[in-house]
Amino acid sequence: MEILIGTTAENKQIVLKNYIHGSPLETDLELKHGNQIKLEAPKGSNCVLMKNYYLSCDPYMRGRMQDFQRSYVPPFSPGSAIEGFGVSKVVDSDDPNFKRGDFVAGITNWEEYTLIHKTHQLRKIQKDDEIPISYHVGLLGMPGFTAYAGFYEVCEPKKGDYVYVSAASGAVGQLVGQLARLHGCYVVGSAGTSQKVELLKNRLGFNEAFNYKDEIDLEAALARYFPQGIDIYFDNVGGAMLDAALGNMRAHGRVAICGMVSQKSRTDTQTFRNMFAVISKRITIKGFLQSDFIDLYPRFLEDVTSYYKQGKIVYLEDIIDGLENAPAAFVRLFSGKNVGKQVIRLASE
Amino acid sequence: MEILIGTTAENKQIVLKNYIHGSPLETDLELKHGNQIKLEAPKGSNCVLMKNYYLSCDPYMRGRMQDFQRSYVPPFSPGSAIEGFGVSKVVDSDDPNFKRGDFVAGITNWEEYTLIHKTHQLRKIQKDDEIPISYHVGLLGMPGFTAYAGFYEVCEPKKGDYVYVSAASGAVGQLVGQLARLHGCYVVGSAGTSQKVELLKNRLGFNEAFNYKDEIDLEAALARYFPQGIDIYFDNVGGAMLDAALGNMRAHGRVAICGMVSQKSRTDTQTFRNMFAVISKRITIKGFLQSDFIDLYPRFLEDVTSYYKQGKIVYLEDIIDGLENAPAAFVRLFSGKNVGKQVIRLASE
Repeated sequence: MEILIGTTAENKQIVLKNYIHGSPLETDLELKHGNQIKLEAPKGSNCVLMKNYYLSCDPYMRGRMQDFQRSYVPPFSPGSAIEGFGVSKVVDSDDPNFKRGDFVAGITNWEEYTLIHKTHQLRKIQKDDEIPISYHVGLLGMPGFTAYAGFYEVCEPKKGDYVYVSAASGAVGQLVGQLARLHGCYVVGSAGTSQKVELLKNRLGFNEAFNYKDEIDLEAALARYFPQGIDIYFDNVGGAMLDAALGNMRAHGRVAICGMVSQKSRTDTQTFRNMFAVISKRITIKGFLQSDFIDLYPRFLEDVTSYYKQGKIVYLEDIIDGLENAPAAFVRLFSGKNVGKQVIRLASE
Repeated sequence: MEILIGTTAENKQIVLKNYIHGSPLETDLELKHGNQIKLEAPKGSNCVLMKNYYLSCDPYMRGRMQDFQRSYVPPFSPGSAIEGFGVSKVVDSDDPNFKRGDFVAGITNWEEYTLIHKTHQLRKIQKDDEIPISYHVGLLGMPGFTAYAGFYEVCEPKKGDYVYVSAASGAVGQLVGQLARLHGCYVVGSAGTSQKVELLKNRLGFNEAFNYKDEIDLEAALARYFPQGIDIYFDNVGGAMLDAALGNMRAHGRVAICGMVSQKSRTDTQTFRNMFAVISKRITIKGFLQSDFIDLYPRFLEDVTSYYKQGKIVYLEDIIDGLENAPAAFVRLFSGKNVGKQVIRLASE
């Protein structure tokens, strides 16, 4: 359907009702009707008006739903549309770098149309028939870059290293495991369903995989999968799994802390029995944010696009249609219902 | 008193009674009489017979009193003399590298005379009137080297960094703080008595110091002493203090984990509220053992000897006389009664 510049349209939005404590419920977000938007990028504004095609569900967004001022991103505002990574099509542009019809990736709002002021954070997507545009919030977006920067820049990988990845079929984990395999490492992943375990072994090329929910003793489970110990733990979950991994690290092991999705809030207590291993095994634990490595983004895009086109890596997405289903899609992240990168599709190419 | 080679003497020893759980009591060690030793290094043995002058009390030895096989040093054997660092005088030598009258530093037994087979681990002490020989188990021994390697090689210090040291008047901490000051850092130390706090500020040159036992909320205390946050935390204690420091780290802060003297055993649970800061502040936590840096020992000896002779650093020792007082001296480490490096003197030069 042709969009007429300058007309006004309804712009449905997903808003945060109130700050949450702990994990988000579907009812913490709501679809808001009736908001009107003028479909133009006003002259002199330097803005871009975009139609949103894909919205990305990422675990870090839970943190923005909590009224916690000391994090690396500010909290959302209750009553307003939440924001996140997305893939969008330019409807009208007052920025000479973008023109109508361009596809872009970057931070957008959870709504049908978004007027973007900070156009510098948008990245124009080169159309490529081999690559679904939704990958620009997954494999080629922030999660993919997190995996790339975290694995190569934080984990100090060497060929032959024993690598463990938790939340291994998720948006980040699935790429970490595949990059580690390409690097000549032995890779074991964990996930929370037998379906995911099968995917890890049969689609994503992990050497081994296990369902952590089937294990009474996580430390013993890791000892079974890593009789020689772990050189690299890429941690997406924190808490008890981090503790179990610490108890299985080899001397001079590295733990890259990427996420703590097992923790309901940032001040939940986490209890460790194996902290002493940090000394006795000379372990390095390193937290990181992909944004610190942003200079590597062009190289990442080139490398990972090339691996993908050569068939060396695959990428699993879990796509749900419709803005009205966005709250349900988002909360799937925290119950582990998503299989692969969770994306909401608002429109198709 | 002249020692006659080849005669037999009583050799009193300190033995471990039984493996312990938790912190050591004075009664876990006992003075054993009646053991006889022949005062010679037998021909062809390549051994050295030494008279022990100073024995070093170090917190890591608690770990060897526990029957825990997975550490970096094996447990002691109940009923036998315990071992540790010491300064000794060669009585008789079948190793051409050592001769009667030499002073040596290295691993010895807690007893009056020790026959050393592994002479390669002994280091000959260059006699120096300006430097007490006891310093070779402290400032110029393992604790001093731990401070040196930990600070320069693990903490990645920069001029102007905000540095926090716990157990700051201890054998390691007092040198870390002074090296950090010499490096142009702002240094705050904590200790457990007002006397130690005074020493930190007035003798050891720390910018600030506080008594952690006076603080109800360690995290708030650190926020008061580091309104700008902490760049480097040199951790000697673990547990609640580590958690409090994590909550006060600056972006890209470094935590060097040297010891966990607050923890009664290596599998005690430690509870953290601030683990998420590892991600949001991109903190590096690194455990280390001085032995991994042993190639730096000659440079360390040269640097620290030179600082000491120039009056740039001082070193506090807490010397207790007599092997019979060794158990009492040792347990002082865990109640914080020692002021500075805890040493037992068996003989004087």
